[in-house]
Amino acid sequence: MLKTPYLLFLGDAADPLAAKVAQGVKDWRPDYSVGQYRLADCNADMGLPDLDIKAAAEAGAKTLVVGVANRGGVISDAWIKVFEEALLNGLDIASGLHNLLRDIPSLVSLAEKHKRKLIDVRVPTVEYPIANGKRRSGKRCLAVGTDCSVGKMYTALSMEKVMRERGMKASFRATGQTGILITGDGVPLDAVIADFMAGSVEYLTPDNDPDHWDLIEGQGSLYHASYSGVTMALIHGGAPDALILCHEPTRAHMRGLPEYSLPSLAELRDTAVTLARVVNPDVKVTGASINTSALDDTKARQLLDSIEQELGVAAVDPFRYGADRLVDALA
Amino acid sequence: MLKTPYLLFLGDAADPLAAKVAQGVKDWRPDYSVGQYRLADCNADMGLPDLDIKAAAEAGAKTLVVGVANRGGVISDAWIKVFEEALLNGLDIASGLHNLLRDIPSLVSLAEKHKRKLIDVRVPTVEYPIANGKRRSGKRCLAVGTDCSVGKMYTALSMEKVMRERGMKASFRATGQTGILITGDGVPLDAVIADFMAGSVEYLTPDNDPDHWDLIEGQGSLYHASYSGVTMALIHGGAPDALILCHEPTRAHMRGLPEYSLPSLAELRDTAVTLARVVNPDVKVTGASINTSALDDTKARQLLDSIEQELGVAAVDPFRYGADRLVDALA
Repeated sequence: MLKTPYLLFLGDAADPLAAKVAQGVKDWRPDYSVGQYRLADCNADMGLPDLDIKAAAEAGAKTLVVGVANRGGVISDAWIKVFEEALLNGLDIASGLHNLLRDIPSLVSLAEKHKRKLIDVRVPTVEYPIANGKRRSGKRCLAVGTDCSVGKMYTALSMEKVMRERGMKASFRATGQTGILITGDGVPLDAVIADFMAGSVEYLTPDNDPDHWDLIEGQGSLYHASYSGVTMALIHGGAPDALILCHEPTRAHMRGLPEYSLPSLAELRDTAVTLARVVNPDVKVTGASINTSALDDTKARQLLDSIEQELGVAAVDPFRYGADRLVDALA
Repeated sequence: MLKTPYLLFLGDAADPLAAKVAQGVKDWRPDYSVGQYRLADCNADMGLPDLDIKAAAEAGAKTLVVGVANRGGVISDAWIKVFEEALLNGLDIASGLHNLLRDIPSLVSLAEKHKRKLIDVRVPTVEYPIANGKRRSGKRCLAVGTDCSVGKMYTALSMEKVMRERGMKASFRATGQTGILITGDGVPLDAVIADFMAGSVEYLTPDNDPDHWDLIEGQGSLYHASYSGVTMALIHGGAPDALILCHEPTRAHMRGLPEYSLPSLAELRDTAVTLARVVNPDVKVTGASINTSALDDTKARQLLDSIEQELGVAAVDPFRYGADRLVDALA
């Protein structure tokens, strides 16, 4: 979907957090980028060579990836000027912003003239099929959460990294815009039309070698009233062999829903397994991925121990202690 | 959304089944239609006055409703001629066909010229919100099925009818194109974008009188791999107080999925209640609606008795024996 290598556009990022897409590319696909492009007042730095558009094109860059969230939802004139120069110099542009590249006339006409692509990764471009529920070859692992934003993408990416380091066959399968920009491909699941959600996940995770693992990026939560339908489609479209339960232990309520408390990991396990068995009777919960960033080392280890005892599966914080035991448990 | 009264367009319906949308309007909203329009080779008859367009307009018709499925997915020239005449005579046109009215240039220009509407009920026209999960006043009942097409729409419509006859406050809430054409309003849930599914159901079932019941049309099944995400969004967006379990006892496999067997009613109950409790802790399964059309009277009554004993709730076939006991159970 996206051609590599990238030039990472950091724009006028207010702080490093505003450039989290660029950070994701840097962390998980370090060999994808030839450099970064920063405007004068940029407060983020990926430690990559600062290249102007001409230098990036000469270095072989094929796609300018917008690695920064814009201020107030507007694509500024200063950004557009850079994008125009990128198109003039033969680069595609890829963005996950809410405001679409395709809605900016000067970019559309330049892209047409120079036969370059404007890739708004939030918008599906494929006509996905309706799910057929057929078993596929290869293995699939899906991260499911007690809530949104509890580390599902990080869990899958860190497992993929360990597996590749071990020489295992593994593919992270992106289902959201950040993941798509990081890996260059995927399905923007939250923008897919209801009837085709599960089919788009089948499309994303096709037949593969018997010893190949898809590590499917989770979305939402079965217990999140706003997005549970998306999670459900991931479970039935993904037909996972392995489920990883993801959790943030200090969260006071479901994200965006102050009246809702989080389910327990055991509740999530029972519900997710019941539903996943519909499409894959052999599904197993193989691990728990706990975001312990708010806890000190002693408390974090105590919590992981107690979860491990309660659930009877490996409980780790992959960011803090590595994803190795989550990968061990797949075997 | 649709202005009444209707003129029901039966076209050249090959048989009565092809006119099932028209039949639905006739059955459930008998006072909505001033007449029917049939082409020469029409094999369906709603028993309504046959009116030409002029006579229908004089009788007050505001919307020509396409009550027939078209052959081969194409809107024929013979149909278009009638639709053009309808627009010329001041009628809107409403259709749930896969091919869209808005894609036929002559209709678009006539509608514009005469300020009439082309209403393709398959296509959402509202920008639905993201669900907020807040409790609403009023009561809600949702039909959930062991499979697709097991009588969920019929169950909700027949309960609404009984409730209105008893002077209760009740509104069928359509979530599919047939239901929308029958009642004139609703949400085409299977065409809504993933992130907004649950929000569209909240939008459809807003705050209401404390003694008012929304009877929400179900879609798909939690156990149907292709459409379970849609069902999930209905459960969390609808936040039902009452669930009715719907089932067709002779079905050999899930509709369209030959490798999949149906869940038991007890499995469906446990899964649906667990998920519905997330948004409404007081939810109860109040009844089972069983399509016994393939069984003789003795076998049907035996089956209903045994289901009633097993589940401990009223089990009825509302088509065969009436929906009264399903309504009684709401109290």
